[in-house]
Amino acid sequence: MTKKAVILLSGGIDSTTTLALAKDQGYESYCLTINYGQKHRIEIFKAKQISQLIKVKQHKILNIDLSSLVNSALTGADKVPKDRNINKIKKDIPTTYVPARNTVFLSLALAWAESIGAADIFIGANAVDYSGYPDCRPEYLLAFTKMANLATKAGVEGMLRYRIHAPLIEFTKAEIIRQGLSLGVDYSMTHSCYDPSPQGMACGACDSCILRRKGFVEIGALDPLNYA
Amino acid sequence: MTKKAVILLSGGIDSTTTLALAKDQGYESYCLTINYGQKHRIEIFKAKQISQLIKVKQHKILNIDLSSLVNSALTGADKVPKDRNINKIKKDIPTTYVPARNTVFLSLALAWAESIGAADIFIGANAVDYSGYPDCRPEYLLAFTKMANLATKAGVEGMLRYRIHAPLIEFTKAEIIRQGLSLGVDYSMTHSCYDPSPQGMACGACDSCILRRKGFVEIGALDPLNYA
Repeated sequence: MTKKAVILLSGGIDSTTTLALAKDQGYESYCLTINYGQKHRIEIFKAKQISQLIKVKQHKILNIDLSSLVNSALTGADKVPKDRNINKIKKDIPTTYVPARNTVFLSLALAWAESIGAADIFIGANAVDYSGYPDCRPEYLLAFTKMANLATKAGVEGMLRYRIHAPLIEFTKAEIIRQGLSLGVDYSMTHSCYDPSPQGMACGACDSCILRRKGFVEIGALDPLNYA
Repeated sequence: MTKKAVILLSGGIDSTTTLALAKDQGYESYCLTINYGQKHRIEIFKAKQISQLIKVKQHKILNIDLSSLVNSALTGADKVPKDRNINKIKKDIPTTYVPARNTVFLSLALAWAESIGAADIFIGANAVDYSGYPDCRPEYLLAFTKMANLATKAGVEGMLRYRIHAPLIEFTKAEIIRQGLSLGVDYSMTHSCYDPSPQGMACGACDSCILRRKGFVEIGALDPLNYA
């Protein structure tokens, strides 16, 4: 029987590589992209293209106006920080942090997973080359898993045992890209920038661009994106 | 300093009583109502009226199309079960169960709570006179609380210690109503029915109506609603 998995797909490097890994492991892919009011909503368009290219089983885009609830440089008027030192990026939780974002996303993934009978949820969380977001750490994901199995009919009745997979959590960005390239991921399809131009060109200077560029440099590969 | 609390408000008996309790405990009330595609969306209108009447600090209504992700008699084509025996209501998880609903709702409440600096989240969950939903049980709420404190910047940095309050969790419906009446709650403003008429009249026969009616009968009070 085919194993179904819900995969949170933002259209960035991490989630696209995670999708490729899930497919490689034989999962039938149900991809979920959240339009939450992010400034860089071009990523939603990218996620759609990636889903079509990778031929996933299903791709859903769900709208939820998180920007009406939260303060974040990713959704509000605050400027996205630029040209930060890599050590600083990895140390402080920056203004691009979106309160409870992964919790909201995983909750929605869980709702869909229970409805389609999927026990497996994939998320591209990474706790190495990342921005210090608390909801990207293993201890958080473990706590979410425990909660998920108490929250659901399938979990409580023992029909499904939910697992949150974060296969990239201990990888550096370079290792993620190397892994993705070995699986044939086309990174020209992905979007990482928090603050793209109106035409969708990456700024090259936000935390997300810096981590991406560093990853490509470290493995000596060419980042297929153009930067402003 | 005023304590802020986010209160999940559906417009039913339990959440309205919970709001009255939070206000009575001196919390500044930030009420959140979710329009998730429920058939009985008249409850959203009721929640708005209640928020105005009780003069809450803020009331937000967030749209999220859960019906595109989940199967439930509350959101889809399946019929809402009627005239069920009270013991059966309390034993099985019925088709009105909405996968991961409270997890999605609490996640959104958490996002808002972190943004406004509120450590306290109130939910009208009840594990006595209820429909057996797994996400209404104390062990679930405890697991959510642990997860929430690992998920958030405020939790991780020790600025806030999140608490999920479910003050009605061990109450019977009768006790809830008695408590609400003592606080001056006007239950004519509330809506409980899962399957109201197009004009919003309660059916009187769904699980939610049965539990409500039983509660009023048990304390010898008059339910101010008319039933079809």
